[in-house]
Amino acid sequence: MINGAIMPIQMDDLLRQALAEDITSEDVSTAAVMPDFCAGSVELIAKQDGVLAGLPVFARVFTLLDDTFCLQTTYQDGDAVTKGTLIGTLFGDIRALLSGERTALNYLQRMSGIATLTREMADVLKGSHTRLLDTRKTTPNMRIFEKYAVRVGGGQNHRYNLSDGVLLKDNHIDAAGGVRQAVEKARAYAPFVRKIEVEVETLEMVEEALQAGADIIMLDNMDDVTMQKAVSRIAGRALTECSGNVTKERLRAIAATGVDFVSCGALTHSAPIMDLSLKHLKRI
Amino acid sequence: MINGAIMPIQMDDLLRQALAEDITSEDVSTAAVMPDFCAGSVELIAKQDGVLAGLPVFARVFTLLDDTFCLQTTYQDGDAVTKGTLIGTLFGDIRALLSGERTALNYLQRMSGIATLTREMADVLKGSHTRLLDTRKTTPNMRIFEKYAVRVGGGQNHRYNLSDGVLLKDNHIDAAGGVRQAVEKARAYAPFVRKIEVEVETLEMVEEALQAGADIIMLDNMDDVTMQKAVSRIAGRALTECSGNVTKERLRAIAATGVDFVSCGALTHSAPIMDLSLKHLKRI
Amino acid sequence: MINGAIMPIQMDDLLRQALAEDITSEDVSTAAVMPDFCAGSVELIAKQDGVLAGLPVFARVFTLLDDTFCLQTTYQDGDAVTKGTLIGTLFGDIRALLSGERTALNYLQRMSGIATLTREMADVLKGSHTRLLDTRKTTPNMRIFEKYAVRVGGGQNHRYNLSDGVLLKDNHIDAAGGVRQAVEKARAYAPFVRKIEVEVETLEMVEEALQAGADIIMLDNMDDVTMQKAVSRIAGRALTECSGNVTKERLRAIAATGVDFVSCGALTHSAPIMDLSLKHLKRI
Amino acid sequence: MINGAIMPIQMDDLLRQALAEDITSEDVSTAAVMPDFCAGSVELIAKQDGVLAGLPVFARVFTLLDDTFCLQTTYQDGDAVTKGTLIGTLFGDIRALLSGERTALNYLQRMSGIATLTREMADVLKGSHTRLLDTRKTTPNMRIFEKYAVRVGGGQNHRYNLSDGVLLKDNHIDAAGGVRQAVEKARAYAPFVRKIEVEVETLEMVEEALQAGADIIMLDNMDDVTMQKAVSRIAGRALTECSGNVTKERLRAIAATGVDFVSCGALTHSAPIMDLSLKHLKRI
Amino acid sequence: MINGAIMPIQMDDLLRQALAEDITSEDVSTAAVMPDFCAGSVELIAKQDGVLAGLPVFARVFTLLDDTFCLQTTYQDGDAVTKGTLIGTLFGDIRALLSGERTALNYLQRMSGIATLTREMADVLKGSHTRLLDTRKTTPNMRIFEKYAVRVGGGQNHRYNLSDGVLLKDNHIDAAGGVRQAVEKARAYAPFVRKIEVEVETLEMVEEALQAGADIIMLDNMDDVTMQKAVSRIAGRALTECSGNVTKERLRAIAATGVDFVSCGALTHSAPIMDLSLKHLKRI
Amino acid sequence: MINGAIMPIQMDDLLRQALAEDITSEDVSTAAVMPDFCAGSVELIAKQDGVLAGLPVFARVFTLLDDTFCLQTTYQDGDAVTKGTLIGTLFGDIRALLSGERTALNYLQRMSGIATLTREMADVLKGSHTRLLDTRKTTPNMRIFEKYAVRVGGGQNHRYNLSDGVLLKDNHIDAAGGVRQAVEKARAYAPFVRKIEVEVETLEMVEEALQAGADIIMLDNMDDVTMQKAVSRIAGRALTECSGNVTKERLRAIAATGVDFVSCGALTHSAPIMDLSLKHLKRI
Repeated sequence: MINGAIMPIQMDDLLRQALAEDITSEDVSTAAVMPDFCAGSVELIAKQDGVLAGLPVFARVFTLLDDTFCLQTTYQDGDAVTKGTLIGTLFGDIRALLSGERTALNYLQRMSGIATLTREMADVLKGSHTRLLDTRKTTPNMRIFEKYAVRVGGGQNHRYNLSDGVLLKDNHIDAAGGVRQAVEKARAYAPFVRKIEVEVETLEMVEEALQAGADIIMLDNMDDVTMQKAVSRIAGRALTECSGNVTKERLRAIAATGVDFVSCGALTHSAPIMDLSLKHLKRI
Repeated sequence: MINGAIMPIQMDDLLRQALAEDITSEDVSTAAVMPDFCAGSVELIAKQDGVLAGLPVFARVFTLLDDTFCLQTTYQDGDAVTKGTLIGTLFGDIRALLSGERTALNYLQRMSGIATLTREMADVLKGSHTRLLDTRKTTPNMRIFEKYAVRVGGGQNHRYNLSDGVLLKDNHIDAAGGVRQAVEKARAYAPFVRKIEVEVETLEMVEEALQAGADIIMLDNMDDVTMQKAVSRIAGRALTECSGNVTKERLRAIAATGVDFVSCGALTHSAPIMDLSLKHLKRI
Repeated sequence: MINGAIMPIQMDDLLRQALAEDITSEDVSTAAVMPDFCAGSVELIAKQDGVLAGLPVFARVFTLLDDTFCLQTTYQDGDAVTKGTLIGTLFGDIRALLSGERTALNYLQRMSGIATLTREMADVLKGSHTRLLDTRKTTPNMRIFEKYAVRVGGGQNHRYNLSDGVLLKDNHIDAAGGVRQAVEKARAYAPFVRKIEVEVETLEMVEEALQAGADIIMLDNMDDVTMQKAVSRIAGRALTECSGNVTKERLRAIAATGVDFVSCGALTHSAPIMDLSLKHLKRI
Repeated sequence: MINGAIMPIQMDDLLRQALAEDITSEDVSTAAVMPDFCAGSVELIAKQDGVLAGLPVFARVFTLLDDTFCLQTTYQDGDAVTKGTLIGTLFGDIRALLSGERTALNYLQRMSGIATLTREMADVLKGSHTRLLDTRKTTPNMRIFEKYAVRVGGGQNHRYNLSDGVLLKDNHIDAAGGVRQAVEKARAYAPFVRKIEVEVETLEMVEEALQAGADIIMLDNMDDVTMQKAVSRIAGRALTECSGNVTKERLRAIAATGVDFVSCGALTHSAPIMDLSLKHLKRI
Repeated sequence: MINGAIMPIQMDDLLRQALAEDITSEDVSTAAVMPDFCAGSVELIAKQDGVLAGLPVFARVFTLLDDTFCLQTTYQDGDAVTKGTLIGTLFGDIRALLSGERTALNYLQRMSGIATLTREMADVLKGSHTRLLDTRKTTPNMRIFEKYAVRVGGGQNHRYNLSDGVLLKDNHIDAAGGVRQAVEKARAYAPFVRKIEVEVETLEMVEEALQAGADIIMLDNMDDVTMQKAVSRIAGRALTECSGNVTKERLRAIAATGVDFVSCGALTHSAPIMDLSLKHLKRI
Repeated sequence: MINGAIMPIQMDDLLRQALAEDITSEDVSTAAVMPDFCAGSVELIAKQDGVLAGLPVFARVFTLLDDTFCLQTTYQDGDAVTKGTLIGTLFGDIRALLSGERTALNYLQRMSGIATLTREMADVLKGSHTRLLDTRKTTPNMRIFEKYAVRVGGGQNHRYNLSDGVLLKDNHIDAAGGVRQAVEKARAYAPFVRKIEVEVETLEMVEEALQAGADIIMLDNMDDVTMQKAVSRIAGRALTECSGNVTKERLRAIAATGVDFVSCGALTHSAPIMDLSLKHLKRI
């Protein structure tokens, strides 16, 4: 998803903006202790266990400041590391290492936190038919990074945004006047490459969605028993997605209903960071 | 901090960018069910207990889409609400209500999550001398919102970024060749309106920092006993800040050392969101 | 697609940029003849027959210069007009009417030109099963306007861009090592809301695409006979799209093959403009 | 006009914006079939006869994605090629070749289409005194590319925009109160480096323009006989430009009037593209 | 030049950027003393004699913060005021008055400083044939404001930038191989609406420039006697511009040579500001 | 302050914007005389005595156009040079040397002008206790460059902007209801890393400021006698800053009062440029 060939289009503006957020005019502390170019290195160390996500983003932040920068590492996104691991060594102008440190870590820590939580939840689903999905409950201006981290952690991505998927939720159904009307209007309107997904809360709505020809039916806030009934009734005529009250503890029960997908906003909106740190700065 | 008079400069670009992240070309679902202007309302409801932060930001998102938008509410930032509370009613073009919903909630949920966690921690410190601070461990391109949320929750803000405060951390000290050298270089270099803060890990370093004339001494990763000794030794000659391993459970012990400030990265990097929702969309 | 509620996000930046392309420093001619505010009107007149598309865009250009601007008209996008028709009257600051004229017309003329050509081609398909599609062969930084114009003219939109649809073309197939490999890799990789489309040139490739489970099969540069065979063989197991050498003359023959969609790059890359003009400027 | 030394200022932002229009988040198809770096080549082939324009722009699109990209070719802008010609070979990261293909071709095809039409019309004027000009009827946010293509095709450029030339059209004359007033106001107002051009429709207006001292007189929508009279009457006291109803068929008759310039909006607003294609992708 | 109808295109981005330069996160001082909306007024007072330029720019800065802002004044750009004059009263949200004060004054003071110096120099030329011109020696990202101020002060504008005028200076002549070659190449290359200006330093070069058909000849760094000879020799066959070592004291002598224009970089690069101040803030 | 490691964040956007201000579409003169790449050199020469500031900015302008550009020089910012000095030689594509010349010089001349004036004033203060400060009276969108130039010239920087320092001026005091109220509100509101500065005009206000606990007291528009009394009364309990009517002539008298700092807006708002020029362009 994030890759070297389209990175300049995907993220450079966001990374520069984040650096500018942290450097209005100058980095006073660094300018004071290191006024001129000086080659150096510093180590990237895991301060807790977790799954790495965002190493290319982390490196890119420094590269935007210093094109001689390089990150020497044998790890890659998706690798699990344990507390204390020396993940890699950064080489470059010490001023860039110091000035970019916080911004680069802010990305890497958040992305790795998301990958770590996603991995934990995805592991629970292993062996089952059900796949783990993210949502659009991402941090503003961080979606590209957060959805990538979900994928690194073993989850799958739901639609990227309002433009590239149709999801008719309660408020759309209210606006349209009912499940059937909403699905029909969407089928008439949406480009033919779009699948039509609709949110339902009851078995009656499931029926209505099926008859309207929805491609995907989101079973919202259903208890496990109702959900199982819904999945049985749908019987493969549409893809099914479980949504609402999704916790790690409940995942096995959800998978047992046979639902195709389970989406979890917490992956991106409430994952704590993975603690990482730069240590042992040296001149070289 | 965030206020109506400078909001266009502080945040409009970020909010537009966040909306564009969610709307590449069009909002397919909304366009399908509501092709033309239609006045309507929808309710903002708390789905869990928490402290509200970001109502002006939330409203601004909709206003950027629809200048007739208005949020009717008796609540304001800093108010604690309980699960189920009807916080307010939104009025405007239904298309704007639907298309702006996720972006506006993504801001409000994160900001309220931070305010809620901050309030919990600040409450522990009530009655003590010690004040709670945030850090620069904020989400990229979200700092203005996150630091505001800390303040709403009852915390105080540390420096905003690398340009407006001097904080000499371990890597700066390594680069400078020692605590004393770092502080002296900073005093020589930094604009006179800046206070000089330096991070120390041992009592020896405390002494060195004092002699070099630091304005603020950050006591990093010290146990409570060492910290108390440090505070005593400093004896008001510099402000003191506790940093590292700060948890809600440990806060009372930290306050008991008499330290002036305690900073906590988790306020902004690991606060779970506060769940909020838009419900009951109606035409009017 | 283009609508008032999300217009500020969809297009304001592009329109301002287009105005700035035409006004580097000042509008010398207008400044010379009309230095101060002066209310006036001017008429929008069709100089040839055609289908209107882009009236809200046209009006928005002037509104960005002059918020008192208004376009009085009984026409709307999709209406066919004949040469000489007075489409509407523009009211506002004469300086804005003069300075915005060319940019506003450049949008309206191109969009109406596309709608006009699309209408002609879509009319040929009327009564048949086959629907007319656009492509990504749009003018750089004009896609939102051009795809909207296709829709106004009676066509449907294919995917918006590389992110919101999967289309495996000859070069992707070469890179993947074959049709089957390409489709399988895409199914494994792409978000589940994406349909997988693959381009084939022979009946053998059709077979391979079917077995790999493609959702949509693009029949590229096939003659009518081969295409008909392909459609028969597919027999509804995938959607079918005809592509390549699509001319107005050939459309009936294409429709006769029973193909679901026919896509035509010329709609956006080679439509001549519809000639429109502003005349009879008056002070009021 | 477009050249390597100022290209970063002239066009990089527009090219990046066009790439971002096509890549919101990722290139799903390419990411699926080619997740990692892989060196490769692909051929640029003419699918119809025409005049090439925009090779440096075409190459720049890929370079913005992949700084190892190179285009090997013996052709340059202005060269006529025939259907089937292998114009050159592109080398670089296959992911960049695939992801940049459409955007790069969209520029090259449009620019070459304009150059091809311009060449055809300029060739008709060969041997005559009259020169072919473009207009401001360009596609929004494409002017730099389109005016360059006109020049490559053998046309000349009229003013670039509203700021760098004075052209008093019918609506300006209405605003000023007459031809004489418009020209006098412009002469009093405009920087001395600007030539003053005025649009006239009758011989009476020609006389008025001459007396007011216009530098250039645009003869708008005149028939050939009237235009010849106008040119005779002007007799070199001002430059003359023919405008309106300019078709390839009428060009010789226009040239026969002895007019200095003939401007043609169709060069940029209605030229069909020249069909070009990337074929034969290979790993290397 | 600067006018209400195109102001949003001409300057809003620059003004917002200037405000953001002064407000990274918040206006701490104002937020401390005035946290909420409060209507108020403040007076704009001249602290020295001078010519006002930039009142619409000054007002626009506040309007971008507060759309209820209004400036009540009977003065307009070009009016001379004396020390102590109450120029006008500003009404609006006190927070906007305080936060915008410095940025708004920074524009007004500089622009008025330029207008004041220009007026002084232009007054010396009154009654003579010679007109005063500015140059491209403007402050980066301030040209639109500075060239407007020159015009307000009674000067005329030379070309706006490298794109809208041809001026062949010493380094271009070196690159071309001589005056004649430079002029000929420019005539062959430049759009026909451009006048060709060439810089000469000797009478021999004047001759060469005339023969090559230059439209404007810049007499660079000539003493008054040589310049007079040059003007005589040119005898109206080209416009003439004096450049280099232009001081107020020398202006009369320059005018006596009969040269058409005299350009003076100091107007924009070395004018001291006109001191202006906001006083007497009141709640209303 | 300005350094290679953060330059891309600090200034690249501003420099590109300044280049675009000067090059809307093309550099007509250069394109005419030098259509293709040609390596060359040109000399940077001082046309008057002064202190250099901005060489890295000057070089960066050319590098943004031509990444092979290099400036060969033995001088650096802060060096005093005399009229006629060959400061260095520029090597690169002649087209870039010509097209970037004016923008690069506009930066270097202004910055060197400020450094030159600052050096003159700072030299007067040599041997005294008093330090020279700049203000926020900088040119819009030039602050980073102008404050750096002050530092190069031997001055110190006051706060950078409204966000990173508290300065309660007359209008804030009016808004707050008095000196004491203003200081108390600021202390309650501002982040703890901020020093609180307040402007006073009388000895009574000095007393009030002291009692309120201001960190810095600005003595505004006081005569030397009153200022000396103020400094004595403050007696080191706060830092002191002299402001208003600061001229070179008065500096010694100001220093004699023992005030800690003297701030001077003229350093940035009224410094004439230092004249510098590019000469002797050669092909190499």
